[in-house]
Amino acid sequence: MKFHKVEGGITAAQGFLAAGTHCGIKKNKRDLALVFSETPSAAAGVYTQNRVQAAPVIVSREHLVGGLARAILCNSGSANACTGEQGLHDARRMTELAAKALGIAAKEIVVASTGVIGEYLPMEVLEKGIPEIAGQLSRDGGREAAEAIMTTDLALKECAFRLVIGGQSVTVGGMAKGSGMIYPNMATMLAFITTDAAIAPELLAKALRYTVNRSYNLITVDGNTSTNDMAVALANGAAGNQTIITESEDYHRFLALLQRVNTELAQKIVRDGEGATKFIELTVKRAPSYAAGKVMAMGILNSTLVKTAFFGADANWGRILSAMGQTDIEFYPERVDVFLGELQVARAGQGLRFDEARAKEILKNKDIKLTVDLKMGGETVTAWGTDLSHDYVSINASYRS
Amino acid sequence: MKFHKVEGGITAAQGFLAAGTHCGIKKNKRDLALVFSETPSAAAGVYTQNRVQAAPVIVSREHLVGGLARAILCNSGSANACTGEQGLHDARRMTELAAKALGIAAKEIVVASTGVIGEYLPMEVLEKGIPEIAGQLSRDGGREAAEAIMTTDLALKECAFRLVIGGQSVTVGGMAKGSGMIYPNMATMLAFITTDAAIAPELLAKALRYTVNRSYNLITVDGNTSTNDMAVALANGAAGNQTIITESEDYHRFLALLQRVNTELAQKIVRDGEGATKFIELTVKRAPSYAAGKVMAMGILNSTLVKTAFFGADANWGRILSAMGQTDIEFYPERVDVFLGELQVARAGQGLRFDEARAKEILKNKDIKLTVDLKMGGETVTAWGTDLSHDYVSINASYRS
Repeated sequence: MKFHKVEGGITAAQGFLAAGTHCGIKKNKRDLALVFSETPSAAAGVYTQNRVQAAPVIVSREHLVGGLARAILCNSGSANACTGEQGLHDARRMTELAAKALGIAAKEIVVASTGVIGEYLPMEVLEKGIPEIAGQLSRDGGREAAEAIMTTDLALKECAFRLVIGGQSVTVGGMAKGSGMIYPNMATMLAFITTDAAIAPELLAKALRYTVNRSYNLITVDGNTSTNDMAVALANGAAGNQTIITESEDYHRFLALLQRVNTELAQKIVRDGEGATKFIELTVKRAPSYAAGKVMAMGILNSTLVKTAFFGADANWGRILSAMGQTDIEFYPERVDVFLGELQVARAGQGLRFDEARAKEILKNKDIKLTVDLKMGGETVTAWGTDLSHDYVSINASYRS
Repeated sequence: MKFHKVEGGITAAQGFLAAGTHCGIKKNKRDLALVFSETPSAAAGVYTQNRVQAAPVIVSREHLVGGLARAILCNSGSANACTGEQGLHDARRMTELAAKALGIAAKEIVVASTGVIGEYLPMEVLEKGIPEIAGQLSRDGGREAAEAIMTTDLALKECAFRLVIGGQSVTVGGMAKGSGMIYPNMATMLAFITTDAAIAPELLAKALRYTVNRSYNLITVDGNTSTNDMAVALANGAAGNQTIITESEDYHRFLALLQRVNTELAQKIVRDGEGATKFIELTVKRAPSYAAGKVMAMGILNSTLVKTAFFGADANWGRILSAMGQTDIEFYPERVDVFLGELQVARAGQGLRFDEARAKEILKNKDIKLTVDLKMGGETVTAWGTDLSHDYVSINASYRS
């Protein structure tokens, strides 16, 4: 399929407005984002599987039960997690404030928060900030909204792609945040997707879950699953395509388009991983199942020893095999081949006398392709991760204070 | 029970000799250790659960099937892991060389290796070194043996304790190595234990497994389980106690003594964790089961975000709850209390307005006690871990090269 990359992100699709402002949760930076659909939208969400769930995750899940929503309100600077009844009250109050300002029902608002865990939201600044941001919505506000959801992120994350579906040009765009505490588990960091496709809520939910599993759920920065992970998609039908109500060819085209956007955003999160100096694309070949290949990929990408070896540009492939052996997946170590880029460093579980200078050269690149061939089954899984650097330690030794 | 701490380690018990030398695997440091019992000994081992198992682990397991052994031969500098048939051949050859020099059967030798994964042993230096070290065995050689099994360890690890059992003074002593790649899984890093207790091999094995589960299996430095983990105990009966053949009072006294030694060695490994600036003793209270409490303890101690917060002396308790929520243990976040030393920082899953200066003071100590109360069941689990520092990254970015 030929996707057409377009400018912008969360407002690239027709009928969506956004804004991003500084309301006062953070000292200087933008800390509040609002996304709004001019017409009613189908909506779906996927949430963190962490047992500790932030208040906005609980409230947004309640609101999305019916598969409809028109706005997404997100603050950065405070996660509103581990805040008990007060936190739930605050999250609900945020939706009420936005509903009043937008002239819609509170139930039509998705609410999200990201930042420090365990602190209460400064509601006084939100009481003032939410009505204000509602007056700033525009077709050009996508970039500022994407900026307002950042925490330790150094790079703003947005993208959009277009594809003809059912004879109409359909756009899917989105924005995401995430840099540390990244190991999405059946969920994601914050990712917000808008589309002008016309699609039934239950199929939007199905497509979102499928593509999240094959994008955000295939990345890791540090093996830590957040309490606030959430991916939400709104589809307002403004493209005018015939509404997708079955798993037709149109559905599969939409699925591919949504996948394209989610994969792009997921990779942007890894590229901006806290302290990361490398972007590692790991392909596990001939896995016995997709699930097994994924567990193995994550076992490798989460190993602190594998990650520090990449940081040091050291072709320490023994650590890769050891990390694989530590997972609960049955495999045959004596079959495994390991490749750094095109350079094979291990065959049938044993080291080759490879060219160390060539390996060093490959490992000094920012983008590194790593391939592990299990020689067992027919599934291939590609996942993305980072190295572990001094900067990761520095960033996280002083995040709260 | 009143344990008497005694000098030395692996040769503290009667009838054991040892030596540690430099044979040429490493450039300058000691790299070969030998432990020998003057008389036949009951013997037992516990091994890594990593699916990738080093050649010496496979050979030692074969040798210990009958519950008898008289010597332990261990090299550092090369792990002899991921080395295929050649590696197995080399491990067997090491036992043959030692057997010939000691005048015993190869089957009576336990062999172990530790160091870089994926390189072949330099057998030419071992062909020469093993006969030489056999001539250097002495009652005073324990310390040099403990030195010879070190890799990135900065501290030598040995200890011994004594207890009256069945009317006789029984000694258990041991040595261990380990600093990185520490997350023993139903096994341990290298730990070698000798005792002059008279005990049946099957009860020695049972006691070893039990105490390993409550010592080495309760520690983590970096969440990476090694391919070469092994704990081996030799019991030669030289103390003259009536042989322990049932789970009698004597057995339980021996078990307590063995636990004392294993706990001490396990804590020494954590204290010497790669790059560690903190020694964290975590107690999980009122867990629904011992197993659940252990999973939760390890979830907390393995979180890079919890570890970097400790490195930065930052009382970021929200990361502790998030790490707990990421495990697959069911619990009630809204019940959880968290204490740093005596200072309570969270109650019923929510933050308290605690004294930040006091928290900082506690977190600036090298030894930190952390308590998490689940308020669910009656089990208490205490486990040990470290922080994650810049030095850990530096050490592991350049270990192989």
